[in-house]
Amino acid sequence: MAGFPTDLEIAKAAKLQPLGDIAAEMGIGQHLVTPYGRQVAKIELAAIDELADRPRAKYIVVSAVTPTPLGEGKTTTTVGLGQAMRHIGKRATIAIRQPSMGPTFGIKGGAAGGGYSQVVPMEQLNLHLTGDFHAVTAAHNMLSAVLDNHLFQGNESEIDQHNITWRRVLDVNDRALRNVIVGLGSRLDGVPRQTGFDITAASEVMAIFALARSVPEMRERLGRIVVAYTRDGKPVTAEDIGGAGAMAVIMRDAMAPNLLQTLENTPVLVHAGPFGNIAHGNSSVVADLIGIHSGDYLITEAGFGADMGAERFFNIKCRASGLTPDAAVVVTTVRALKAHSGNHRIVAGRPLPEALLAENPDEVHIGGANLRKQIENIRLHGIPAVVAINAFPDDHPSEHAAIAEIAESMGARSAVCTHFADGGRGATDLARAVAEAADEPSDFHFLYPESAPLREKIEIVAREVYGADGVDYDPPAARQLDSYERNGFGNLPVCIAKTHLSISSDPSLKGAPTGWRLPVREVRASVGAGFIYPICGDMRTMPGLGAHPAAHKIDLDADGNIMNLS
Amino acid sequence: MAGFPTDLEIAKAAKLQPLGDIAAEMGIGQHLVTPYGRQVAKIELAAIDELADRPRAKYIVVSAVTPTPLGEGKTTTTVGLGQAMRHIGKRATIAIRQPSMGPTFGIKGGAAGGGYSQVVPMEQLNLHLTGDFHAVTAAHNMLSAVLDNHLFQGNESEIDQHNITWRRVLDVNDRALRNVIVGLGSRLDGVPRQTGFDITAASEVMAIFALARSVPEMRERLGRIVVAYTRDGKPVTAEDIGGAGAMAVIMRDAMAPNLLQTLENTPVLVHAGPFGNIAHGNSSVVADLIGIHSGDYLITEAGFGADMGAERFFNIKCRASGLTPDAAVVVTTVRALKAHSGNHRIVAGRPLPEALLAENPDEVHIGGANLRKQIENIRLHGIPAVVAINAFPDDHPSEHAAIAEIAESMGARSAVCTHFADGGRGATDLARAVAEAADEPSDFHFLYPESAPLREKIEIVAREVYGADGVDYDPPAARQLDSYERNGFGNLPVCIAKTHLSISSDPSLKGAPTGWRLPVREVRASVGAGFIYPICGDMRTMPGLGAHPAAHKIDLDADGNIMNLS
Repeated sequence: MAGFPTDLEIAKAAKLQPLGDIAAEMGIGQHLVTPYGRQVAKIELAAIDELADRPRAKYIVVSAVTPTPLGEGKTTTTVGLGQAMRHIGKRATIAIRQPSMGPTFGIKGGAAGGGYSQVVPMEQLNLHLTGDFHAVTAAHNMLSAVLDNHLFQGNESEIDQHNITWRRVLDVNDRALRNVIVGLGSRLDGVPRQTGFDITAASEVMAIFALARSVPEMRERLGRIVVAYTRDGKPVTAEDIGGAGAMAVIMRDAMAPNLLQTLENTPVLVHAGPFGNIAHGNSSVVADLIGIHSGDYLITEAGFGADMGAERFFNIKCRASGLTPDAAVVVTTVRALKAHSGNHRIVAGRPLPEALLAENPDEVHIGGANLRKQIENIRLHGIPAVVAINAFPDDHPSEHAAIAEIAESMGARSAVCTHFADGGRGATDLARAVAEAADEPSDFHFLYPESAPLREKIEIVAREVYGADGVDYDPPAARQLDSYERNGFGNLPVCIAKTHLSISSDPSLKGAPTGWRLPVREVRASVGAGFIYPICGDMRTMPGLGAHPAAHKIDLDADGNIMNLS
Repeated sequence: MAGFPTDLEIAKAAKLQPLGDIAAEMGIGQHLVTPYGRQVAKIELAAIDELADRPRAKYIVVSAVTPTPLGEGKTTTTVGLGQAMRHIGKRATIAIRQPSMGPTFGIKGGAAGGGYSQVVPMEQLNLHLTGDFHAVTAAHNMLSAVLDNHLFQGNESEIDQHNITWRRVLDVNDRALRNVIVGLGSRLDGVPRQTGFDITAASEVMAIFALARSVPEMRERLGRIVVAYTRDGKPVTAEDIGGAGAMAVIMRDAMAPNLLQTLENTPVLVHAGPFGNIAHGNSSVVADLIGIHSGDYLITEAGFGADMGAERFFNIKCRASGLTPDAAVVVTTVRALKAHSGNHRIVAGRPLPEALLAENPDEVHIGGANLRKQIENIRLHGIPAVVAINAFPDDHPSEHAAIAEIAESMGARSAVCTHFADGGRGATDLARAVAEAADEPSDFHFLYPESAPLREKIEIVAREVYGADGVDYDPPAARQLDSYERNGFGNLPVCIAKTHLSISSDPSLKGAPTGWRLPVREVRASVGAGFIYPICGDMRTMPGLGAHPAAHKIDLDADGNIMNLS
């Protein structure tokens, strides 16, 4: 947009309110607000009990159609919707994940929203914030050191060195760390073995931190982490090797959610950032347990499309928190639905194809199959869906109308939003639609019971959410499922790790693919976090840097201001 | 001591003052004080300029005799002396290093002082504090990722893969990471090569952070880091491969020193924690640039014995800061000097030998050779030394008298201190002695000019400080020195990496060894930090965990309180 200010210019011009005032509006007393720098605070977990008698907010999850590689503005819409609530006389609290620092120096856009719907201060948000991710890194690698020390000191647990599942993590895009050999050197330098590093967001500690309802529960979950198996196939836990207590000490202070604000001073709880494919991709349970009693609406964002983050929000996060959602937003853009027609190819960092910009409501209708399925994926869980049409300057009114028709045909409300350009007042129609939907009677339910066998749970998600004809297991996957059932992990929910670029497991299939089967190559267990994750495709758990990464351009100017961070 | 409370009990009973009040007493306005949690703040670097017109404090460095593996209570004495200044009507600021988190989970004692001379809150101090160490880890590993990405993307700089000096770091005791191979897997998983991890305290980024006088100077120094050499031997810097700007952004906020307080509310600036052997082992220059105008005395601690940390304080840190010290304290204990007689063997974690506890002033005189040499090592730099006799309950008055005689024979003041048991009032004699010494006319000077060739600088430190007869260079060391001179690094000061358990390079030689030559095996360069470090012995830059590490015992109790952290 010619002449439109940059995100950073807008953010710098914002008039921030003291966080103590923002917390007070949420009903949170000063004694629970610990400042961390000038515009960030932590809210002590005692707030959960202190707020418990206040009215319960309506609980809204923001999801999306299957995104293009550019993203569809889900965080921006979450922020815009939160801001809009004040414009219709309501008070909202927003809850989002903390961005991962690694990709910030790769090719990622900002994770703070954008335009006039941003979380500020964006520099802290995109860098260290209050150090929670660093605590996850430190706790994770402490357990790795305790594990390798266990091997070095005599391997009392008789760990099978070829069946060690615990790796190491760093919050950096570093492909050279994906596969490493450690323990080289002399006899005093440890036991040589092959392992690797994941990015910190992929750590099971991150998932635990996001799912625990309290510090003692976090401590217990850390103890349940399975780090390896013995030579006769028995799981060895973090508790068994004496690493869980130290991890809990390292993680304790991180358990308090971080309070920031939007450009319009709407409270934002930013807390935890688990991966959206091999983990559940949702912000923390404790933040939501605070937010659920701190306003009229608690608006939280789930990762990727509704088949991914929202499905885990319902079946993993809500199961852990005990909270019941009232409505879901499905964010879409015209360009995403056009891309779902299968006629265009969108590549991050390149201009959009010309043909995609031409007025073409028919193409929107074709690609709309994806939107229909994602609305259905919400309704499967018994709550109403609202379609947020995130408007772009190149859109045509006929295309917005096409989306509204699709929504209506599915019995869902919809609204065109211009919160990027206009802030909260650009999303008041959406806010009203969400308020109406949340007031409807609803019947939230999980998609499957915990007690179902693992294969049945996988089958249910694959058929009902993904639209697959069935599931195929490679032999290792079948063996792993059997062993998990045998080891008592069969009652855990499933978190199916597949591409986020298709509802199917094939990223090239657009729209709402049918006539395919879900191939499960292997199955892993996050026993501490409390889910089993079947792997369906090539899941990257450590990104790399490109030929021209943002790291080459991000710098300080002569006055110490940060340049080129977005 | 029977019935004496634990450090943690004492710390928990302390009445802390609001840090804003403590900063105000230092002359630092509220606008420069950023809270990070309830009892820790950062002081913005603008304080350096704002305080510049205030009177200059006397600048005192606290050093020690060559320590036993138990340590001689140098931090405790630094804190006790700082507290004592108030008891004699003076105001002091204390400046110390931040402890490294890795060893906290190994076998280390607290790094917060002890008894009634502690820095609080000790839990934050010994864990994340404000995340500065995490920032160093992240910045260091960002450069590692940029470097490996440079190789992966085509190695435009023609880096010799067998001459890469930049490794990775983590703040954990993890021997299995000392020697690793990275880049395994497929062609898309990086370039395979051998490398390793050091502990974060050993990072050159840590040394840079400690020595820079400002954020722009830090940025420049980061750019000068040499990460590798080309196939024809030319240095390749962080700037060359485009990593320095991103590192500076990651490090920017960490540059503000952390303000804490002692049990008696004396201000303590805790900032940076570079290693004491391969780096200079002193807290940050910026903290001292603030502290030098914030009271009557600025008391800072240097790592290990006077041959190590104090020598680098004078010749590296003061050269970088431009500040001139007025006096030095040499901390000793009766047991250390008895150990320097060569008659006893002290092992960390085991009870002291019975024979060492028997009254034996003659043995103190024999081991006193070490104290004499360390006093001389202070005087070599033109400033007065004061001997702090850190009293233990098992000491005998005749042994304290022996130490006082040694000090007097060297023309140095001395005082017996009981600050561990009595807090500041137990160190008032020391405070008076330090005040008198600092009022004496002094003639501070560096031991060697920057312009001297590297071999001459090494020779001067070896002969004059260590008492060696000369220096022997292994062939690789000689080649490296020639290459550094050729590459324009010959004007840097030297930081000789040797054992801290002897003034010589042989840890078994006690007292003040003579008749030996310093063997230099290899020579490395920290060009960004600004020193060359010859390696004389086996320098561990990544510790390991023992068979019964503290990590196994540190835990949370049912109320979320930290247990067994000391």
